[in-house]
This record gives sequence, structure tokens and C-alpha cells, in this order.
Amino acid sequence: MAAKVKVGILGASGYTGAELVRLLLRHPRVEIVCLTADRRAGQTMGAVFPQFAPYELPTLISIDDIDWKNSGLDLVFCALPHATTQKVIKDLLSKAPQIRIVDLSADFRLSDTSAYARWYGHEHHAPELQPEAVYGLAEIYPREIKAARLVANPGCYTTCAQLPLIPLLKARAIDPEEIVIDAKSGMTGAGRSAREEMLFSEVSEGFHAYGVGKHRHMAELDQEFSKAADKEVVVSFTPHLLPMNRGILSTIYVRGRRGRTPEGLHAILLKFYEKKQFVHVLPFGQTPQTRHVRGSNMTFIGVAADRIPGRAIIISALDNLTKGASGQAIQNMNLMLGFPEAMGIDQAALFP
Amino acid sequence: MAAKVKVGILGASGYTGAELVRLLLRHPRVEIVCLTADRRAGQTMGAVFPQFAPYELPTLISIDDIDWKNSGLDLVFCALPHATTQKVIKDLLSKAPQIRIVDLSADFRLSDTSAYARWYGHEHHAPELQPEAVYGLAEIYPREIKAARLVANPGCYTTCAQLPLIPLLKARAIDPEEIVIDAKSGMTGAGRSAREEMLFSEVSEGFHAYGVGKHRHMAELDQEFSKAADKEVVVSFTPHLLPMNRGILSTIYVRGRRGRTPEGLHAILLKFYEKKQFVHVLPFGQTPQTRHVRGSNMTFIGVAADRIPGRAIIISALDNLTKGASGQAIQNMNLMLGFPEAMGIDQAALFP
Amino acid sequence: MAAKVKVGILGASGYTGAELVRLLLRHPRVEIVCLTADRRAGQTMGAVFPQFAPYELPTLISIDDIDWKNSGLDLVFCALPHATTQKVIKDLLSKAPQIRIVDLSADFRLSDTSAYARWYGHEHHAPELQPEAVYGLAEIYPREIKAARLVANPGCYTTCAQLPLIPLLKARAIDPEEIVIDAKSGMTGAGRSAREEMLFSEVSEGFHAYGVGKHRHMAELDQEFSKAADKEVVVSFTPHLLPMNRGILSTIYVRGRRGRTPEGLHAILLKFYEKKQFVHVLPFGQTPQTRHVRGSNMTFIGVAADRIPGRAIIISALDNLTKGASGQAIQNMNLMLGFPEAMGIDQAALFP
Amino acid sequence: MAAKVKVGILGASGYTGAELVRLLLRHPRVEIVCLTADRRAGQTMGAVFPQFAPYELPTLISIDDIDWKNSGLDLVFCALPHATTQKVIKDLLSKAPQIRIVDLSADFRLSDTSAYARWYGHEHHAPELQPEAVYGLAEIYPREIKAARLVANPGCYTTCAQLPLIPLLKARAIDPEEIVIDAKSGMTGAGRSAREEMLFSEVSEGFHAYGVGKHRHMAELDQEFSKAADKEVVVSFTPHLLPMNRGILSTIYVRGRRGRTPEGLHAILLKFYEKKQFVHVLPFGQTPQTRHVRGSNMTFIGVAADRIPGRAIIISALDNLTKGASGQAIQNMNLMLGFPEAMGIDQAALFP
Repeated sequence: MAAKVKVGILGASGYTGAELVRLLLRHPRVEIVCLTADRRAGQTMGAVFPQFAPYELPTLISIDDIDWKNSGLDLVFCALPHATTQKVIKDLLSKAPQIRIVDLSADFRLSDTSAYARWYGHEHHAPELQPEAVYGLAEIYPREIKAARLVANPGCYTTCAQLPLIPLLKARAIDPEEIVIDAKSGMTGAGRSAREEMLFSEVSEGFHAYGVGKHRHMAELDQEFSKAADKEVVVSFTPHLLPMNRGILSTIYVRGRRGRTPEGLHAILLKFYEKKQFVHVLPFGQTPQTRHVRGSNMTFIGVAADRIPGRAIIISALDNLTKGASGQAIQNMNLMLGFPEAMGIDQAALFP
Repeated sequence: MAAKVKVGILGASGYTGAELVRLLLRHPRVEIVCLTADRRAGQTMGAVFPQFAPYELPTLISIDDIDWKNSGLDLVFCALPHATTQKVIKDLLSKAPQIRIVDLSADFRLSDTSAYARWYGHEHHAPELQPEAVYGLAEIYPREIKAARLVANPGCYTTCAQLPLIPLLKARAIDPEEIVIDAKSGMTGAGRSAREEMLFSEVSEGFHAYGVGKHRHMAELDQEFSKAADKEVVVSFTPHLLPMNRGILSTIYVRGRRGRTPEGLHAILLKFYEKKQFVHVLPFGQTPQTRHVRGSNMTFIGVAADRIPGRAIIISALDNLTKGASGQAIQNMNLMLGFPEAMGIDQAALFP
Repeated sequence: MAAKVKVGILGASGYTGAELVRLLLRHPRVEIVCLTADRRAGQTMGAVFPQFAPYELPTLISIDDIDWKNSGLDLVFCALPHATTQKVIKDLLSKAPQIRIVDLSADFRLSDTSAYARWYGHEHHAPELQPEAVYGLAEIYPREIKAARLVANPGCYTTCAQLPLIPLLKARAIDPEEIVIDAKSGMTGAGRSAREEMLFSEVSEGFHAYGVGKHRHMAELDQEFSKAADKEVVVSFTPHLLPMNRGILSTIYVRGRRGRTPEGLHAILLKFYEKKQFVHVLPFGQTPQTRHVRGSNMTFIGVAADRIPGRAIIISALDNLTKGASGQAIQNMNLMLGFPEAMGIDQAALFP
Repeated sequence: MAAKVKVGILGASGYTGAELVRLLLRHPRVEIVCLTADRRAGQTMGAVFPQFAPYELPTLISIDDIDWKNSGLDLVFCALPHATTQKVIKDLLSKAPQIRIVDLSADFRLSDTSAYARWYGHEHHAPELQPEAVYGLAEIYPREIKAARLVANPGCYTTCAQLPLIPLLKARAIDPEEIVIDAKSGMTGAGRSAREEMLFSEVSEGFHAYGVGKHRHMAELDQEFSKAADKEVVVSFTPHLLPMNRGILSTIYVRGRRGRTPEGLHAILLKFYEKKQFVHVLPFGQTPQTRHVRGSNMTFIGVAADRIPGRAIIISALDNLTKGASGQAIQNMNLMLGFPEAMGIDQAALFP
């Protein structure tokens, strides 16, 4: 049996941390040697997430207690809150520059540090590292990811919107001025912090939009869509919260350019993802459901004709904690470390 | 105390039937004298909906068992499936032309009987009655409803989309060519028929679109939007199903015309609904949640600026069984019979 | 129209506060003149519970800002957290002894102040008021409630268990040594405080027991069951949390005494509640569902035979926020002020 | 790599069928060569369960189309409805006696064919096969299962109740006359048939008991408990339905015998399951939650002291589709075929 790499998870007490543990426990080439959770340091992982009580896992420690230089770590997943990660990674890499990093926060996703400052309200704390950070959308940048030391794992909403739109923008197949993305996410996307509006009794049996006109994921969308289209693209994007745990569905309204029909858009996507294991393009006219990707690393994409000539409705679905976060982070690790891309993340979806 | 009118409910074993009973039990001017449910004839209402077991209500009968002429009925609510109602009402009115009718099905909503045939796949069975049918959107057609014998209660999706859009189209304030309506509904909108895809285990913890590009409610939208804009309007409309029981939320993307700002659109709605008890326009920038209208006859409407200049995002929320069906039906009855518009339907929402 | 009484609600930003407002808005003899919420003082009720935005209600204030003496209040509902109410009521009554009080907390439910200290971990802060406090189980103590100045509204779990068991214990019809109460509650019973274990993502799609062997509601059960049986009664009681908002269902295992059959137990309950509007005893062998009492003040009780001879299974269901809290509080107010018992709380349940 | 065995799944369009496919797709020693679903014959598995669309799987066929003799099958999972399986297996084994069978229905669980006839209302159709059928509770009968050709996989409720109770009954540690099992199950336990009472709108936001005093799983409980106690045992058992998909939690009330304390009962279970990978006994006083075993083959068991001296409350939790059905079926297959017991079913639970 091949040797195992030693990985650490910073921020193991949150949902993306738990999802990393769930998946890595079954990864044949990985050993989890370090789990951090500052407020829960000293506790077992089973105390924080009882589903892991039967497994042998390292006790939670504080980040400050890690001696990076002598840690023996090969790769670290950062599942820390936004705006706390830049400093941690800067410190880590200054002491142990050989460690590979997959960062699940937004801290290294924007290549333009001034855009970062504008959207996140504070200066970037590690601008010198930003140039080497690779945007980790695995289906779009596999070559860059393989060579990267620091990968910025994309956001969940942005992964769900980019996978269908980037191939179409690259092909100049849709009008970049008229894209509407109506996105709906399960509650785990909001994290595990104890806030009144996230209580069960507040969320159950109801639905609403939030961040209307001003959600931070727009910055990532702007960056990647503009890059794909080779011109500035600004989309309408509205996120909503669903009374369920896992899943994002994006309903995307586009207009074909230069005579592209909805069928033509479908053909582009089908071809683009022909060899990609984690993107499944449905037959034309069929549309996906979030439940059928739950717990899996799959993205399902459907294309249908709008009744307005020339317009199409594209719908994509993924699990925000898996392909939208921790699954894709492991996919990136697999690419970085030369493992088969699907290793450890090839579980079928859990439905019902 | 004023005398009570005698009403009947045809199709009392479905969800809109139950919602009518729930509300009418507290209506001070109404006596329920007749409840029909063909497949459950002979049973008590409490057997079909146990919440009504403590109340005295007529036993369920078959429609065929009603002697319309001698029934003493003043008004009938039809909560029958689409495509079965035209014949029933035709027969009813031929025998008892003085009975008022509020029809909750789609059978009399389209004034153009050829449009009806096209969307519903069969000829209209009572074309001679169609001209007198009034489209029962209570905030838009109060005068016509007061004078009507036969009111076609609007659909739930259409009520939710029309209340925010009709005033804007009438005012020529938005571009009628660029309207996208992304609508999400709770499961009760799909009715009570036992179908696999409506099982709890199929619906829970998931989300999906359906009828993409071809939902029947489009016919109603076309008719009313075109009337309001005085030109043909065709919108993009995508319905989705939410893992919850009650509530519709429509996220509507529009472009202001002739320099109308999002604030300007908001001002139009605020003024239009100033005196309307059942439409509440939120302060500019705030957006509604379905949970805050659950079980009430209210529609909440919010307007926010999109980040694309000139574009606005309008969100409306209502309870599909109340304002989207049975509550509005009673509102129509109140108008038809000269009762205060809010009588019996002024309950505050049930949240949490 | 008869004059209205002036009521205040202390603790209006919690769920029982909201439920009081929902119901009192439709009570024909009540005017809400005062709403308090210390942390939200200065805000509108619509800011705290958006469903009330369309209604005219007093702005939230701090309790300390009330001049009890000159408040003009006739009756006050206390919906404050446990252990904070004794001091508030003591102060209130010292300044305005004519005000009637319905307290929804546990602070005055235990007539034995030493039992209170034992279960709640601190001395009773108003022992001199305890003797006049009446335990407000409306179906059992109507006479005492009518004469009371201070009513201690029962807990939700305890109401649900006491309504079926007290008549049987009074009749010496069941063995008091062998009662098992397995209780399940919706999440609103846990209140509105922002705690990790109450987040949607923690609660959804799961089920668990809590407080096993040591829940505080046991103190109330002990007191009332012992009183009914005229001997010390200690029951097995296990509460659980359901992934839903409203509703409690108690499954109760009992053994008939002196040859009492399950049918005999059913007959006792049927007779006891014959004239009680808010308790509905189902036909023998049928059992209730929480959904059929949602939002109503009803309790549904069913009795079935266990397959073990002599044993019966009794199931009771109510809405924890209505009959289990605010609805019963208004029922108590109605009794105290001489209004019809069901005034303002006679809504039918909201299902589906 | 070791050779793969060829397995078939009869009844692949139901939930336990889908769960078998989900797990077997990752089993390194299994190849799925045959899937049946009579009403869906000719369709792909992806049409019936879209989550499997990306995988290569055999097209669904009718059972009648299988030539058992030449099928090359090593083992068959029967996930057919109760009462249809006896004939199918009889026919199968008459033609291909070497095929191993794990039957997930109730058809071979009762060793007493007259008990079967009494509980299921018809004669056993394969009484000659019953004697060789082994009751497949893997932790209790591993030796028998290894040698079996035909294994009757236990029911979900019964697995959940038997795992904690059988060791205690065997040790004569609890009073067999006073066992109360209050069981709660997610909706997938009710299967995929389209029935009104299983619709989302009927189930959501509510809770109820069913089959009170007369559920068929009692027959299995009687058989196995009596065997363990070596005397006739009849328990109180009440099943309930939870508004969630997966998970069973049993709250069990017992009395220790001959001075056994709750701690003593806990010690027995801890020791009994010390080496069992799929049963995790929590520290004394802690109790499990269904969400922490979701999608895994684990059973979590907790023991707490009741406040009534000598009485304990035992709570067990498992996923009804995994350890309660398909996971245990694969565990049985692993035992029968000499594979490691946990092969293919060692996924960690999916939470949140």
C-alpha cells in the first residue's frame, strides 16, 4: 500500500471541517494528524461532532500550539472564517514553506487585492502571497492547481454558477450583459455560528432572499466571468436561503449570442464536460434537483429553452459542503499531490 | 346580528377546500351549508381533515346529490380540479342562476377561450359563460368583482407576480421585454393527490425547478400583463418547489424605463397600495420572507436596487393557500356580497 | 361594543410574546397598550417580528420604563425567561396591586417554595406572593382562576401530560406507580435564544431526547399528579425534540387499576371533557396528530388498548405555543375577566 | 485485485434498493449485474433515481426475465414488498440452489410459520425453506449467518430495539415484564408507495403515532426477545413517524432485576459490544441523536438513570435504511461470503 500523506485541518469544528473529516476518513492516501478549533481546544472531535466518536482522530488543539516547522505536515486545509486566514497562512508558510495549502475561505480568491479590500472592508494581510494563489475551480484550472502551493478553493455559490457559465462565456455563446443568476442555498452554507436568524424555528417552513444587490460572492463571479469573457462582466445575482441543510441550485437566465439556440448552448456544455467526472450534463430539457447530489462531489447541469426565442434557462445543482467546499478542496488536494482526481470523493449521493 | 349567507364548498377534501373551511368557520356572516367531495361522500369533514372534528359541519356529499334549485345557497366556492369545473358551473347556473360563484380553478381565468384550449389541451366547455367571468385579482378589479356573478379566482403564482408588476406595467415604468420571474412555491401548491414525486421522502431536503419554459400559469400572466401594458408581454417564468408547506416567493428582475430608478419603482408600488389592506410594501431595500405571511391574507412586497444601473429586484411573498387561493376567494366573496373586504380573513400570520 | 381592557405583554420579543400578540390582535375585548423587550427597546414590533409590521402596535420599551401605578393597565402577561419574573411581579404588584397577572414562566408554578429552590437552583424571590398564585390549568381549576389576581400558566409539556392523566388519577383508575410519559416537542418550545444546538442545520433531519431523567417540568408533574392522586406520584418522563416548529405529542403508558379496561379509561376522559371546548377526546382506538392542532388552542386526546392485558396507551397532542402557552394564557385571562372562555382563541388549526 | 462477486438486486426502484446501490457502488468486491423493478422494467436506474445517472448500471428488468440457472449470480438481495418474496425465492432456489440470498422483507423472519400466518394474514408460501432461514441480526448471529444460504434481514424498528435489549435479556439483567419501547422513525421507513398520508404536505411540521397496540414488527420482537430471555416476553411497543427522512430512535424504559443499577446495565452493553464495529455505546448518561448515524451503518446506544430508583432509560439510534436495512444486508453478505465485515459500509455519517 502506498504511503499516506499527513494532513491537518484548521477550523475542524465548523461544517466544512466536519465534511473534510467525513471524506478524508475514507481517503486511502491520507492520514489526518492535526485538527484545530481554537474555542474547542482540548476536546475530542467526537465532543464537537458526535458522529466521529467511534473513530480515532487527533484531539482538537489551538492553531497557536502547532510548531509548523516540525509538524511533519504535507498539506493543510484551512476551514477558518473569512478574514482570519491570510495571517495564519502567512505565518505558516514563513515557517514551513514546503507545506501545501488548500484554503476554503475567501481570503485568497480575489487576485486583485484592492477588489478584496473593497468587498471585505479591510486591507489584505498577505498581499505578497496573493500572486501565487491559484483559484481552485478544479474543472477550469486543473493545470495551474497541479503546480500550486496555495489553492484558494472557490465559494459554493460561485462554483455552482461558474461551472455552467464559464464554458459558455469562453465560447462567446451568450450575451454577457444579460445574465441573471437566481441562487438558492441550504442553511449549512451559512455556517455554524449561533445567530438568531439561523435558528430552526426561524428558518423552518419559510424562504427568503438576502444580500439582495450586494452579496460578496459577486466579487468572485465578476473576476472569473470577466476572465472567461475577456471583458468586464457584471451579472444580476440574488442568493436565497432554503429550509434544508445541503444543496445549492442556481437558475440562470441567458440569451444566446449570434444565433446560438438553447440546444447549441447545451451542446457546448456537453462537450466541455465530456471527460469530467464531477460534472454531469443532463439530456436537453431535463433539469436537476439538489437532492440527487447530496453528499456527493457531483454537479448536475440542465439546459432548457425559454419560451422567449433565443433565451435559455440553465440550472445547476451541487452540494454546497461537498463540491461547493470540502469535496472540491480534496479534489484540489488530489490534483496537487498527484493522486487520482476522484480518490476519496467518489461516493454516490445520499438520497432519499 | 346580521343574517348569515349560505355558502357551499365544492371540492372540500382538497387543501384549498380545507383552507376555505378554516377561514369561513370564523366568518361572522357565513354559514357553511354544503360540502362536497365525490370520492369521500358520506364521510364527515373530520374524517378527511381531523382538525375539523370538533366543529359542526355538514357531511360530505357528492355534487350530483345537490338540488341546485332548492339548495338555498347564496354563493358557491368551487375548489375542484382544473378542467372539471366548467361543466359543473354551467349546470349549476342553468338551474339556479341567482347563485354567486367564486371558482378557484383555472377554468374561467382566460378570457380568450382559444388560449384556454391551447394551454389546457381541450375545448372550453362553457364558452357562453366566459364573457361574464371576472378575473378576481381583488386589488386590481374590485369594481368588476362587486358586480360579478362568476369570479375566476387567480392562481397562486400569478397573484404573487401580478401584484408587484401590474402597477409598474400600467405606469409604463419598466421594460416589458426584460422581465424575469423566478418563483418558488411550497408543496401545498401541488395539491393533495397521491403522486410519488410529492412524497415526503422525495421532497424533503431538496429543491428543484419544474415546468421550465412551459408552465400553465404563463397564460394568465400573459393575459394580465399584456392588458396592463396595453401591448403583448411575454415574460420568463420559472416555478420551483420548496421543501415546506405554505408560501410563494417571487424574485423578479426588471429594468426601469425612461430613467425610472429602483426607488422610483418602489414609490409607485407604495402609492398604489397605500389604501390596500392586504398588500404591504416594505421600506425600500428590505425584502420579504414567506414565513411572515403564513396563514394570513397578506402579500409583502420589497424593492431593492440591483447593482446593475437601472435594474431593480422586486420580491413578493404570499401564502399560496390564503392570498394565493382561499383567502382571496373569500375576499372576493366579501366584495361580491357587500361585506367589509377583510371580514373573516384578517388573522395575523402564524410565525414561528 | 363593550369597552376594551388594557393589557401589557412583558417579553414581547420571544415566541410566546409573538403568539400572544397574534391572538390578542383579534380579541374583541382587548387593547394591547404596552409591549416590553429589554434588548430591543425602542424598536417596533415589526422589526422584531416582521409579520406584525402592517399592524399598529406600541413601540417596544424596557420594563424599567413602565410607571406601573399610572399605567392604566388592567392585566399583564409575563412572557419573561424563568427566574426573572418573581422580582418583576413583586415590584409590579407593590406599586399597582389591582393589576391582574398571567405569568407564562415557571416562577410561580410550584406552591412549595422549597421544591422551587431545589429544582431551579436558587431561592424564590417572592415567597410572600406564592400562596396567592393559582396554577392556571384552565380545565382543572376554572373556579380558582376566576378569582385569582396572579395566575401561573402551566408549562407546555405539563399541560399536555396533565390533561389526560389528571382525570384518571382523580378517579383512581390507573396505577400511579407505573406511568411512563414519552414526550416530543417542536423546537419553538426551546425559545428564541441563539444557541448552536438550536440552529437549523443542527436540528433538521434528526431527533433526540434531552434532559433524560432530570427535566424541570417534572416538578410540576409531581405536584399536580400527587394532588390529583392524593398521594405522592413520581412518573418516568422523557422529553425529545422534533425537527418541526410547533406541537407536542405525549405517548403515555398506563396500567388500569381495579379492573379498569382501556375502554373504561376512555369513558372517564370522554365524560370529564364533555363540556370542555378545548379538549377533544377522539373515538376509542384513534390517536391524534400534532398537525391537526397547529395554531389552535385545542388538545386532542386518544386512548388505545395496549396488547398487554390491562395496559393502555394514551396519546395527547397540543400546540406548545397556543394551548401550551399563550393560548391558555388568554383562556386564563378570559376566565379572570369574565369574558367567554374561548374569546379570541377559537381559531381552527392551520393544516396543512 | 481479488475477483468480484456478481450480485443482483430484486426491487431496485424502492428506497432500500437505492441504498443497496449507493453502498455497493463503492464495495471493492462486488459487481452489480442485475437490477429488477417490475413496473419500471426497461428504464435505466438513472430514470428511477437520478443520482445514479452518472454511473454505469444494468438496465432495470422484470424478475420474470431472469434465467436464474444461467444468471451467473453469486448472491441476490431481495428488496421486494412483504408477502411477495416467499414465492420468488422458492422459485429462484429451485432453479439455482447455489445462489445466496439476503432477503430484506419480513417474509422469512419468523421461524414459526403459524405466527407468520397470524401476523401477516396469509399462509407462508415457502414453509419448507423457513427452517434454513437465518435471522440476520449480524451482531447476535454472526456464526449462523456465515453458514447460511438464506438470511432474513431484520426490520428497522426491531434492529434498533434488539441491539440494546438482547444482551440485557440474555444476562437476565432486566425485568422482561416491564419493557416499554417508544420508537420514532423517519419517513423512508414507510417506503416509496404513493399514498396520501405520506405526501410532504401531510407529513411536514407534524408528528403522530400509528399502529398503536398492533404493529407487525411486534412479531419479530416477541420471537427474538423470548429467545434471548428463554421465556415468553411481550413488550409495549409504539411506533411514530417523524417529519424527516432517515433515522430511528427508540426510547426504552426498563427496570433492573436483582439489584442491577442503570450503571450496571450500561456496563453489560459496553462489554457486549466492545469488539463490534457497528455498535457504539456512549458514556453513561449520554444519549444519542439520529443525525449522527445518518447514512452510516452505526448504531449508537445510550443508557441513563431514570429518577425512579431501579429504572433506566435506554436510547438507541440508527439509520433505518442503512443499519436498519441495506447496510445490514451488506454486512450479512460480507459475513456470508467471507469478506471483512465492514467492507463497503464503513462510511462516516453525513452530518449536517
